Amino acid sequence: MKVLVLGGDGFCGWPTSLHLSDLGHDVTIVDNLSRREIDLELEVESLTPIRPMGERLRAWKELSGNDIGFVNLDLAEEYDRFEALLKEYEPDAVVHFGEQRAAPYSMRSTAAKRYTVDNNVRGTHNVLAAIVASGRDIALVHLGTMGVYGYGWSGSAPIPEGYLTVKVPTPDGDLNREILHPANPGSVYHMTKTLDQLLFAFYVKNDQLRVTDLHQGIVWGTQTPQTALDERLINRFDYDGDYGTVLNRFLMQAAIGHPLTVHGTGGQTRAFIHIRDTVRCIQIALENPPAVGDQVKVFNQVTETYRVRELAEMISSMTGVEVAYLPNPRQEAAENELNVSRDNFLELGLNPTKLSEGLLEESRDIAVKYRDRADTTKIIARSTWRKGMEVSPDLVKE
Amino acid sequence: MKVLVLGGDGFCGWPTSLHLSDLGHDVTIVDNLSRREIDLELEVESLTPIRPMGERLRAWKELSGNDIGFVNLDLAEEYDRFEALLKEYEPDAVVHFGEQRAAPYSMRSTAAKRYTVDNNVRGTHNVLAAIVASGRDIALVHLGTMGVYGYGWSGSAPIPEGYLTVKVPTPDGDLNREILHPANPGSVYHMTKTLDQLLFAFYVKNDQLRVTDLHQGIVWGTQTPQTALDERLINRFDYDGDYGTVLNRFLMQAAIGHPLTVHGTGGQTRAFIHIRDTVRCIQIALENPPAVGDQVKVFNQVTETYRVRELAEMISSMTGVEVAYLPNPRQEAAENELNVSRDNFLELGLNPTKLSEGLLEESRDIAVKYRDRADTTKIIARSTWRKGMEVSPDLVKE
Repeated sequence: MKVLVLGGDGFCGWPTSLHLSDLGHDVTIVDNLSRREIDLELEVESLTPIRPMGERLRAWKELSGNDIGFVNLDLAEEYDRFEALLKEYEPDAVVHFGEQRAAPYSMRSTAAKRYTVDNNVRGTHNVLAAIVASGRDIALVHLGTMGVYGYGWSGSAPIPEGYLTVKVPTPDGDLNREILHPANPGSVYHMTKTLDQLLFAFYVKNDQLRVTDLHQGIVWGTQTPQTALDERLINRFDYDGDYGTVLNRFLMQAAIGHPLTVHGTGGQTRAFIHIRDTVRCIQIALENPPAVGDQVKVFNQVTETYRVRELAEMISSMTGVEVAYLPNPRQEAAENELNVSRDNFLELGLNPTKLSEGLLEESRDIAVKYRDRADTTKIIARSTWRKGMEVSPDLVKE
Repeated sequence: MKVLVLGGDGFCGWPTSLHLSDLGHDVTIVDNLSRREIDLELEVESLTPIRPMGERLRAWKELSGNDIGFVNLDLAEEYDRFEALLKEYEPDAVVHFGEQRAAPYSMRSTAAKRYTVDNNVRGTHNVLAAIVASGRDIALVHLGTMGVYGYGWSGSAPIPEGYLTVKVPTPDGDLNREILHPANPGSVYHMTKTLDQLLFAFYVKNDQLRVTDLHQGIVWGTQTPQTALDERLINRFDYDGDYGTVLNRFLMQAAIGHPLTVHGTGGQTRAFIHIRDTVRCIQIALENPPAVGDQVKVFNQVTETYRVRELAEMISSMTGVEVAYLPNPRQEAAENELNVSRDNFLELGLNPTKLSEGLLEESRDIAVKYRDRADTTKIIARSTWRKGMEVSPDLVKE
């Protein structure tokens, strides 16, 4: 299969590109390196020493014998080049990771809010418009987020995979109607993924595009079998307050002896998935696309749910590092339950990686190996959801 | 009240600006004249001879004694100037008409689809972000569209004003949940207004902005008491296949003896409102804003519903002009029912203008007066919802 991976330089995109190439697919990465540019802006770096794209691809060729193509292209700003690429490369499928993906970053300033909306919505719409303009039957797999649903809306019912059947009262009695699960995003970033959903629904209805939207939980872990082959292939590991994801942050904090930073009560229940499962889910979604005429296919891409404080306590007991309870910069419920349907991937053969399977240690080892690269002034989350909300000072001195 | 009218040069924005100024409000228009530029692109003009903004404002000052300000500014592209304007002008309210508003135009080409999404979503998001950044309590009134709802979704229940209470099945029995009415837009243009709804919901939740969204039907008529005062104040009258609205198109077609162009069976039921009621609805919405902490206030801004072929038959019997049934360039149901709640405006004192009240004749007189300005090659709708759909040739020779 010929596959374009949009955002193939990022934390999920890079290991996905290698995984698909390893399976024998013809992969081309499209990326404008925006994630590396944001690192420059935030004055922070991946804890792991990621290599430039050229070096990554040369190493992969050397190790696997496979070529992966690379096109440096801005999806939001360079529509004509993207349409031409679809016509020239003739992909069977496009995997779309090409969006600004951090909630705290999306709330940190007016400029970051605007960048997140402009980049994500324009980029996704350009992808859809270009697929239509290409006249080709190209399946689209998009990385969504569990955050489109909000938390705790459905009472004791699990969050369904995209759609919900509700009863609508009418003078002639209740009508059963299947609806897209109501959107309740918790940040500007999450909001953009709720906008994406409406773009997909329209283009599927009007142009019969084939689209799969994967509502992913919080990714943990660093390496996949392919990225672990050689240090030149190593994946990103973000630990900073804007881009670091909670479990990886705890592992890194433990590695340098920094208190584990829980914001608020830690009663937030979140859904998790290991990066090894992310890449397998993308593969499964590519192998099981919707048919022409089908509605958008939605999968919840999660394997386990935990409360944030449970995770902190688990890492604390593994490592002896204390837990610090800090002000919460987000506007969210202090505590929530979370019960998520995830039958689709299980039925299609995903065998989920659990926290209990030793990979926590592997990730901690990565964090230990590269701990000297950490900048402790970047650990505290300082992007607040509204101006004037309390933030914590640094907890350790340089 | 100090009011910024975004898109104040357009078909709804201009008469609204005059109406608010006439009521004694301090009005400043913000517009980048994009509607006039699209006329240049489409090689068509308003049937009525609208004047440049400078002349419009000088005439209004001469007749009313009132100043209306004007800032030529692109909401999507000139964020910093807009934020500075909010801080400098210190409006109490912003009325937001500043979006590309034609469904056929939004479907006519890839470029038009992209312009509509980029312009509308970025513009609306910039307005919200700038209100937050200004730190001021500014009420926002936005012109939405009935098209966010789709047609016929709720069976025999009327389309509610924005929100719907549904029953969600759970293991513990049905939960009652109020949701935003599910979105079912019929064009890229309508889709942008469904995206706007999610932007509003998020900013109201996160930043407690005060937002009113007015889901307007199809506007007919041309003049309001203010625009009729002097020919220099005359409002736009669009008759072309992209921007002309159905009833005004029929009136203009009758005035030049062109067959009345019904697309498909004419069984589409649509909601209508006279431009005189549009301006009064905006006034009522401004006078009745939501409180800080309220959810987005949604009104359906419609007064009557008709099937398209009923309107064609009405105009045909008034004028003797025949009805032509042409291929439908839209992807939509051939026939639909439409039952709309509109209690909010009625309760707040709107006394709706009906088709039966003689204003049809007034609009027809406008069309007759200016019929020599018509270009008959612009009448047939040629923007199709998908490539290759059938369109009609011109029905009359030049």
